[in-house]
Amino acid sequence: MAKRTTLKEFEAVYPKLEADILDWAKQYNLPQQQLEWYQKSLQANTLGGKCNRGMSVPDSVSLLLDKPLSEEEYFQAAALGWMVELLQAFFLVSDDMMDGSITRRGKPCWYRQEGVGMIAINDAFMLEAGIYTLLRKHFKTHPSYVELMELFHEVTLQTELGQLCDLLTAPDDVVNLDNFSLEKYTFIVIYKTAYYSFYLPVALALHMLNIATPENLKQSEDILIAMGEYFQVQDDYLDNFGNPEHIGKIGTDIMDNKCSWLVNQALKLATPEQRKILEAHYGRKDKAHEAEVKKLYDELKLEQLYQQYEEKRVGEIRTMIAAIDESNGLKKSIFEAFLSKIYKRSK
Amino acid sequence: MAKRTTLKEFEAVYPKLEADILDWAKQYNLPQQQLEWYQKSLQANTLGGKCNRGMSVPDSVSLLLDKPLSEEEYFQAAALGWMVELLQAFFLVSDDMMDGSITRRGKPCWYRQEGVGMIAINDAFMLEAGIYTLLRKHFKTHPSYVELMELFHEVTLQTELGQLCDLLTAPDDVVNLDNFSLEKYTFIVIYKTAYYSFYLPVALALHMLNIATPENLKQSEDILIAMGEYFQVQDDYLDNFGNPEHIGKIGTDIMDNKCSWLVNQALKLATPEQRKILEAHYGRKDKAHEAEVKKLYDELKLEQLYQQYEEKRVGEIRTMIAAIDESNGLKKSIFEAFLSKIYKRSK
Repeated sequence: MAKRTTLKEFEAVYPKLEADILDWAKQYNLPQQQLEWYQKSLQANTLGGKCNRGMSVPDSVSLLLDKPLSEEEYFQAAALGWMVELLQAFFLVSDDMMDGSITRRGKPCWYRQEGVGMIAINDAFMLEAGIYTLLRKHFKTHPSYVELMELFHEVTLQTELGQLCDLLTAPDDVVNLDNFSLEKYTFIVIYKTAYYSFYLPVALALHMLNIATPENLKQSEDILIAMGEYFQVQDDYLDNFGNPEHIGKIGTDIMDNKCSWLVNQALKLATPEQRKILEAHYGRKDKAHEAEVKKLYDELKLEQLYQQYEEKRVGEIRTMIAAIDESNGLKKSIFEAFLSKIYKRSK
Repeated sequence: MAKRTTLKEFEAVYPKLEADILDWAKQYNLPQQQLEWYQKSLQANTLGGKCNRGMSVPDSVSLLLDKPLSEEEYFQAAALGWMVELLQAFFLVSDDMMDGSITRRGKPCWYRQEGVGMIAINDAFMLEAGIYTLLRKHFKTHPSYVELMELFHEVTLQTELGQLCDLLTAPDDVVNLDNFSLEKYTFIVIYKTAYYSFYLPVALALHMLNIATPENLKQSEDILIAMGEYFQVQDDYLDNFGNPEHIGKIGTDIMDNKCSWLVNQALKLATPEQRKILEAHYGRKDKAHEAEVKKLYDELKLEQLYQQYEEKRVGEIRTMIAAIDESNGLKKSIFEAFLSKIYKRSK
């Protein structure tokens, strides 16, 4: 029987990995001040999140083996999970700078912390470097070492391409709804989020167990990318229609000129008059403008549209899961576990 | 007989490699606007330099083989050379942002070009990603594929550690000479510059020819790191004592609060009174302050000190070159070629 990991168990592995990264840097006789800076950046940017992405590696390994993990298996899977968290830390530090964000996980963004500023760019690089330090330390003799490096390279580039598309499509300061389209929306969602959040953890689990056949990877990719897309549509829906008390923040997608699922649906459905309302009020940092857009979303019945989308999409995903070929070690239960975590979530 | 490459030959390889990187991105159905952006960033940031680092890969391969390269050999070596140039482009784009630099290669820095701004952070990442795209495309079946990836990972981290030390030791806005020391200076120079500029090209050439034995790598590292250190000391010397018409720019290290070889020597030699002059005038963006520091450098006879340093260091490097064991394919001529390019240079 598989066993779900807890944040506490997962976090208990972190100190060993941090020590590995810092020990590696010590071989270069890095001065003490710089070593302490690296440690501080690692802790500030890697710890403190929900670790859903990272924990899904040991969870997937346990589901694939259909048993609780031995100490050694858990350590390996959690190490891969922390590499996903390092990759995310690398992206979040830099995304926050590019978006001019203010807070992250309830604290000032790293670049806004005392004495950091633009050094955060180099810190982001060093978070990324931590991935390859850990891979080399713990997976150099693993049969999939090359594939693991290539997988991280590939998912890193995919996420950067998604981020580029997002930055060029929805700049913070220029509102131009002609830039938006559902095609671009889908590209951004899949590349910026779905690959590293959904596909990467499962692909890592398959590699760890030496069952990353092209067929197993392809089936996983198809389902997890669909699931990641659904997850982001849901996120966009909750930003406007969710309960701020549940989601822990007040949505700002309309004021932030986000290329969100809702605005793309609105653009598709809008009459010329309704489009004028969007043109006049979307992407303005002002509650009165935002209220006009929200009113239009209600008129266009986007809440109901989302619910139809959700039922249809989840139905399709369930069909894909049912069709999985388990003969080479892949397990439907992995995808069912992902889906149960997100279906009809309110936060 | 070995043959030196020209910038023209080296640049002739670039279009094929750019096409490889963009073709790889095309498989993800990247929208046209994003594809054009990636191409523009690759061209703006990779082309237009002297390519000394990149060209030293085919030069080293030719010296190791002691013959002109076949077309296929030249392409492989130049591809590795362009990866060094991509690595440098990744560093320069981000360093310019962290340093708040204004121009690069006679043009506005990338982040200061029309419409770029903070997107340059993501562009820097995508330049780095180009390295691994090219490695995968052209070296996947090479026996040293793993070592090549690890080498780029390692040199990338080393350069980032050097940059971190530089940023923390000599922030642009806080002058504190207590922060400086020759030990830190040496660390910065070796890690921020010498590894990627001197060691990396030769290590790549050795790997390409399958003669990257631990002994060959170690001998190369020892000599090239010493040479890279000498090169940077020379750079710092020329910044103050060089002829601006030769070096193509007017030195600003004093005004920019740089942790340069000269200021570290001055701090070592200064009487308490002379130290007060440095404290009062170093790192101020003002020609009158700068003139006081320049006067002190003359009083301390730093020009002569440099000349003594140069003779001693070059003597040591020549001794190291003479002691090279050539029995496993390493050639003294590589290091002689590097040295002849930099000894007593005036630009």
